[in-house]
Amino acid sequence: MVQLFKKISKMIGLPPGTPVHVGEQRTERTKVTIFDYDASSVQEKEIQSVEECFPYKEKPSVTWINIDGISNVDVIEKIDSHFGIHPLVLEDVVNTEQRPKMEDYGDYLFIVLKMIYFDATTKDMMAEQVSILLGSNYVISFQEKEGDVFNVIRERIRQGKGRVRKMGADYLAYSLIDAIVDNYFSILEAQGQDIEDIEDAIMEGEDSDLPRKIHQLKREMIFLRRQIWPLRELISGLRRIESKIIKKATLFYLNDVYDHTIQIIDTIESLRDMVSGLHDIYLSTISNKMNEIMKVLTIIATIFIPLTFLAGIYGMNFEFMPELKWRWGYFALLGIMLCAGLSMLFYFKRKKWI
Amino acid sequence: MVQLFKKISKMIGLPPGTPVHVGEQRTERTKVTIFDYDASSVQEKEIQSVEECFPYKEKPSVTWINIDGISNVDVIEKIDSHFGIHPLVLEDVVNTEQRPKMEDYGDYLFIVLKMIYFDATTKDMMAEQVSILLGSNYVISFQEKEGDVFNVIRERIRQGKGRVRKMGADYLAYSLIDAIVDNYFSILEAQGQDIEDIEDAIMEGEDSDLPRKIHQLKREMIFLRRQIWPLRELISGLRRIESKIIKKATLFYLNDVYDHTIQIIDTIESLRDMVSGLHDIYLSTISNKMNEIMKVLTIIATIFIPLTFLAGIYGMNFEFMPELKWRWGYFALLGIMLCAGLSMLFYFKRKKWI
Amino acid sequence: MVQLFKKISKMIGLPPGTPVHVGEQRTERTKVTIFDYDASSVQEKEIQSVEECFPYKEKPSVTWINIDGISNVDVIEKIDSHFGIHPLVLEDVVNTEQRPKMEDYGDYLFIVLKMIYFDATTKDMMAEQVSILLGSNYVISFQEKEGDVFNVIRERIRQGKGRVRKMGADYLAYSLIDAIVDNYFSILEAQGQDIEDIEDAIMEGEDSDLPRKIHQLKREMIFLRRQIWPLRELISGLRRIESKIIKKATLFYLNDVYDHTIQIIDTIESLRDMVSGLHDIYLSTISNKMNEIMKVLTIIATIFIPLTFLAGIYGMNFEFMPELKWRWGYFALLGIMLCAGLSMLFYFKRKKWI
Amino acid sequence: MVQLFKKISKMIGLPPGTPVHVGEQRTERTKVTIFDYDASSVQEKEIQSVEECFPYKEKPSVTWINIDGISNVDVIEKIDSHFGIHPLVLEDVVNTEQRPKMEDYGDYLFIVLKMIYFDATTKDMMAEQVSILLGSNYVISFQEKEGDVFNVIRERIRQGKGRVRKMGADYLAYSLIDAIVDNYFSILEAQGQDIEDIEDAIMEGEDSDLPRKIHQLKREMIFLRRQIWPLRELISGLRRIESKIIKKATLFYLNDVYDHTIQIIDTIESLRDMVSGLHDIYLSTISNKMNEIMKVLTIIATIFIPLTFLAGIYGMNFEFMPELKWRWGYFALLGIMLCAGLSMLFYFKRKKWI
Amino acid sequence: MVQLFKKISKMIGLPPGTPVHVGEQRTERTKVTIFDYDASSVQEKEIQSVEECFPYKEKPSVTWINIDGISNVDVIEKIDSHFGIHPLVLEDVVNTEQRPKMEDYGDYLFIVLKMIYFDATTKDMMAEQVSILLGSNYVISFQEKEGDVFNVIRERIRQGKGRVRKMGADYLAYSLIDAIVDNYFSILEAQGQDIEDIEDAIMEGEDSDLPRKIHQLKREMIFLRRQIWPLRELISGLRRIESKIIKKATLFYLNDVYDHTIQIIDTIESLRDMVSGLHDIYLSTISNKMNEIMKVLTIIATIFIPLTFLAGIYGMNFEFMPELKWRWGYFALLGIMLCAGLSMLFYFKRKKWI
Repeated sequence: MVQLFKKISKMIGLPPGTPVHVGEQRTERTKVTIFDYDASSVQEKEIQSVEECFPYKEKPSVTWINIDGISNVDVIEKIDSHFGIHPLVLEDVVNTEQRPKMEDYGDYLFIVLKMIYFDATTKDMMAEQVSILLGSNYVISFQEKEGDVFNVIRERIRQGKGRVRKMGADYLAYSLIDAIVDNYFSILEAQGQDIEDIEDAIMEGEDSDLPRKIHQLKREMIFLRRQIWPLRELISGLRRIESKIIKKATLFYLNDVYDHTIQIIDTIESLRDMVSGLHDIYLSTISNKMNEIMKVLTIIATIFIPLTFLAGIYGMNFEFMPELKWRWGYFALLGIMLCAGLSMLFYFKRKKWI
Repeated sequence: MVQLFKKISKMIGLPPGTPVHVGEQRTERTKVTIFDYDASSVQEKEIQSVEECFPYKEKPSVTWINIDGISNVDVIEKIDSHFGIHPLVLEDVVNTEQRPKMEDYGDYLFIVLKMIYFDATTKDMMAEQVSILLGSNYVISFQEKEGDVFNVIRERIRQGKGRVRKMGADYLAYSLIDAIVDNYFSILEAQGQDIEDIEDAIMEGEDSDLPRKIHQLKREMIFLRRQIWPLRELISGLRRIESKIIKKATLFYLNDVYDHTIQIIDTIESLRDMVSGLHDIYLSTISNKMNEIMKVLTIIATIFIPLTFLAGIYGMNFEFMPELKWRWGYFALLGIMLCAGLSMLFYFKRKKWI
Repeated sequence: MVQLFKKISKMIGLPPGTPVHVGEQRTERTKVTIFDYDASSVQEKEIQSVEECFPYKEKPSVTWINIDGISNVDVIEKIDSHFGIHPLVLEDVVNTEQRPKMEDYGDYLFIVLKMIYFDATTKDMMAEQVSILLGSNYVISFQEKEGDVFNVIRERIRQGKGRVRKMGADYLAYSLIDAIVDNYFSILEAQGQDIEDIEDAIMEGEDSDLPRKIHQLKREMIFLRRQIWPLRELISGLRRIESKIIKKATLFYLNDVYDHTIQIIDTIESLRDMVSGLHDIYLSTISNKMNEIMKVLTIIATIFIPLTFLAGIYGMNFEFMPELKWRWGYFALLGIMLCAGLSMLFYFKRKKWI
Repeated sequence: MVQLFKKISKMIGLPPGTPVHVGEQRTERTKVTIFDYDASSVQEKEIQSVEECFPYKEKPSVTWINIDGISNVDVIEKIDSHFGIHPLVLEDVVNTEQRPKMEDYGDYLFIVLKMIYFDATTKDMMAEQVSILLGSNYVISFQEKEGDVFNVIRERIRQGKGRVRKMGADYLAYSLIDAIVDNYFSILEAQGQDIEDIEDAIMEGEDSDLPRKIHQLKREMIFLRRQIWPLRELISGLRRIESKIIKKATLFYLNDVYDHTIQIIDTIESLRDMVSGLHDIYLSTISNKMNEIMKVLTIIATIFIPLTFLAGIYGMNFEFMPELKWRWGYFALLGIMLCAGLSMLFYFKRKKWI
Repeated sequence: MVQLFKKISKMIGLPPGTPVHVGEQRTERTKVTIFDYDASSVQEKEIQSVEECFPYKEKPSVTWINIDGISNVDVIEKIDSHFGIHPLVLEDVVNTEQRPKMEDYGDYLFIVLKMIYFDATTKDMMAEQVSILLGSNYVISFQEKEGDVFNVIRERIRQGKGRVRKMGADYLAYSLIDAIVDNYFSILEAQGQDIEDIEDAIMEGEDSDLPRKIHQLKREMIFLRRQIWPLRELISGLRRIESKIIKKATLFYLNDVYDHTIQIIDTIESLRDMVSGLHDIYLSTISNKMNEIMKVLTIIATIFIPLTFLAGIYGMNFEFMPELKWRWGYFALLGIMLCAGLSMLFYFKRKKWI
């Protein structure tokens, strides 16, 4: 099940600006990979010592430094101090409980996003924090662990497909954001599928465990909403920002990703409506089923209880009960019982109970 | 049932600006028809090769190029490159999962709308994406398949009815939008009718399948809302835009279609209120019916269970039961039973159960 | 019951600006009456031919042309073309499905309002569209049929009561709006009364048909809300408008009617809250009643079923059942049964069921 | 119970600006009292003839004219015309169905407020309209009847406590508003107490009449909300107004009363949340109780119905029923019945029903 | 349980600006401690007489005067008058029912906050009001009682850790606010844990007291919301304020604490959603359980009532009942009964009741 509220007490009480890794430690190792490219050439390497990436700061080509694993605070501190990053940014990078946001520090922009994974079999949803530092000629991205949705971008850089090699660091940052946002669509698709499965299950009356499943969907929606809603503000902030870092040509692309974000938020709201509708329809279905059960009980009881009473009457041992002596008494009574039972049935028929 | 969430994963991972047809392929063929007209003359033809429409770009008369079928990306790419359209627009045209929107690209406006069809018998609701490119003297419209709500406009152009021949491309674009918006009214009418049918069904206690029907209505409302809400922003954007493409004389007409949009959104909200009211009233009705059922059971059980007990007493085989020997014991007991039963009935009468 | 969604498909497909009467035709005849007045004199007449009202356009005195019946589009077209009214206005006048709105056409203002009638006996609520054209020295009002809430204004004009004769056409228009708004108060009063009647009925447990009545109230609220909400924007628009047609002295009066509108909207929202509260309280009451019924059944069944079982035991025909031969067996059993029954009763008493 | 919607039809149809007393007539007599003070002296008297208060208009000292009883429209008309008040103000003063508001008429401000009384024993909530005219050196307050929350202010004026004698008419008006707002706190306290009482009653299962009480609380909340929400706008209007009547030194005090208003509105919203929570918890409790009842019934019926069937079998009169002849048949059957009953009990135990 | 609405009637009727302690008196003693520091030195002492803190007003170093216990109004009055604080501030400091807010008095800022304690064992939540006066070189903080969340800050000042000693009074005030906000995270964590515990309890069907627990959670959410929502406005006010008191270097830190506030508010909203979901799932679970119970009853009754009727028939004492004489009548009947019972079971099996 989605973990909605993580333990973050560790952080409390420390002076602001102290970088402490907060959140589940997902990898111990810190892996740093570098892409350095311009329109004509591209260089890709995994570095062993953090100092290897320092020279790229001054190079005019676009440099993308990707760091997987943030529990090793030292490495991150070194990079940040070399690139002149504010300590508060450093604190936010290693605290994985950030809300998606964008901050303008003049020389660079600081962007925090959430990459969301959904394991369809275990129904496990998980968010990984991705922090992006966007300078005029570099992008530094921090991830909690290896494995991400950026491979398509890496491939495009390597092969020079699309516009990425021809444009600057801002376009690269846009590409990263776009890849993360695009990934949300597949998450929402899976959610939509889950909702339809539960709808079908309700309709077919397979009620095993449905309230729990509906509740879990609700939780996942709350989780997604918290991760994705702030994106709107973030990207709309990027569009309006008066910064030399974001070039005008990139604005069209930001508009595009903004549209996607709005569409995703729309979809989340629709899904939320659907999920809360599920609960209503489930309650109706239960009530209907209860009515069915009660009807069966009532029909049976209403027909047989009076008849049993009649039988009881003639099972009494009074010495003087004239009917008992009658030749056709027994059959007359059977006839009466039959009539009574049939008229009951007719009554229920008219009431549309059967 | 309405398909709320389509598969759009196909798109994920492609570089932005890559035109890939996303959505159900509704037609294979791409049919291009051209209307070229001014106040005095009109020309209409279906072209075979896409190059035939290129000369119209320079003609001063108003040209409406309508393209049915967008899965053939090549054709669309050719037109777009000739008319100088941005690649992101091209991508949006062929991706049928766009949200309705309006974008100003300087030389032309890009408008995305949803045409909605409702099949009253199968209760199937379907949206078709219509993209409109509005330049100073041309309108290019893209539809997913043949068949639309624009025939009245075609007729007006042919016969010179109304203002359309006397005014520019912006008025033509307005006419297309107006035709789509007007069509929503008939969709909403059908929805309103459905709601009233379900209301009647609830009142008359025909409960077969009602929760499912109410749920489906809810889905349709969610669907309509997602398609139509963004229209408000779209049209209000068209009204406020500072563009030479939209002439002042057209503004009054845009105000008019804006009014219609507001009215449609109002109606959707009212319908939503109605639908959620339906669920409430349905629950009340079920509960009431359950009460009825329980009353019947309780009345029958309460009257006959004690009487059966009495009969059971005198059916016992004790050797010494003086009442059994009494001459009028049997009839006395019958009298007592009658009294007991009647007083029960009286009690229920007073409680207003019967 | 309120007709929430009228058929308006008739309009679809016509060129914009085509005046077609949309809505229920309420009268065939078109009756035109004229009031022409200034501070010193007043003239009132019903005209036979529409041309009779043309000269008033140029007269400096205030002219009020009231037209009852709008299905005769010709008459309206003639008036409009003489007074220089935009065709879109004409279209809106005869389409009775307009949303209340105000539009500034420079020389005149176009105002659409809804007059609401409530028939307390049939619980029928009905809206009639009133369109007002306000020029510098004339007011033209269009109504769907004869009979309105303006008689008090007519009387004031005839007798020179109040300020109406001393002020201009804008004050007259204000008076018409004010009369319509004031009339809403009495509608809301009737609604408030209905709500309290239903509350009382719920409390007293007269449940015949309550869900339907609550649902109808909800519909009426939705209906009223749609008609009245847009008024706020309308009147606030009139107050802020920079038009020579609205004189400064009239602004105080517009503020007053604005206050009334806010108060009416407040009241509608309160009534909505009340109505949705009604459903909650109704559900609680039903559930409570069900509990009562179940208690009766349970008490009776719990007391008599075990006793009947005991009686059944001694009604068996085993040859060897020693208790049957005992001298006081029967009375002992009766005693045991009495004790069992009483202890059950005591148990229910302690559980506060009886 | 709170009267939410009063009859105001009396007003409909009158020319605007006509002063007609609307609302319950609470007193026949009109009592006018005057306070006239400056930092050094104070004069207090009840006047008999309305003309006595005219000279105070010109005096430089601060004059507070308080009028209890507004059904005598003549008196009010005289005062207003002497002080140069607009007729629309006069109409609002005597119409007790105003919404709280503030209007700037240049020379004076017109403020309408609601004083709320709550009778804890009868649970009766009542609003009295207080209108305040604030000029540069006078305050005229109109109340529906004698008795108010202003005695503390009178005492402060008499004894020169606090700042009131040292400051102007605006501070006096502020003091009146502050007294009314402070009084709301005690109303909300009583409401909060009521909510907690009902919570306790629900928890302890004393269900007599709870839905009605919850509903009444809801009504009172709706009532309070309508009276108090507009205050925010009113006081925030007073703070921003550009008027020579409100001096800068008074602004700090207005900020203070604004804070109180926000706090009161916050509290009302919290109370509303609480009340709607009450209904939920009440429904849960009823459902739980129903479950309890059903369990008792089901346990009893499930144990004894099969046993009674068994007894019935051996009560049959077939000639050839071998078990009946067996020596230990009866006791064997009793044993079987005991086992059956006990295993049923065990089954229910395992299901945690008992 | 959380005390949502405290008695504050004591305050009503006093002239504004009168300092009266409102709220539960939590300590009698007033303890004043002083920190005075700059980058190079730090002095810490607890003073006995309030006059001892006066000289610090003029010192250029940063002075933090912390006052625990506010029921001794005299002490607070002396400090305030020495530091030139407005009487309304004084009144707010000692009234512990303030809403969190920030006010700019030119020479100093006045900030009111709520410190929240949560006792996990008694589930007791409590708010303590902290008022902060921030001048150019001093911070005066007022607390209701000893014990707070500021010890980490004291330690940092003593040991010169972090930036606090190098920066001004504004940074100290920020640190206090940050400590309070950080503390909210641990409160929310505890709430999140409670919600998950209740979820588990619902799923496992341990229904003892759940409605009460859910209701208490709801109350706590309402309580937290009221205390924390105004923080957003407060801190956003601090960021935008044009005051020489807040230096630019501190703005980054205020942004950081603003982010935290937004995150906390997000979390509260998510928790509220969760809690209201809890009620839904609880109702579903109860209904499901009721269905289970009803099914058991219905199955038992439906099988055995008809059989008992059959047994009753052959227990009648009619003289002429041919079946009774049949040799295999008894066994035939048993066979019939068995078939009837089995076919019932089969029917329920098919209906998926068993």
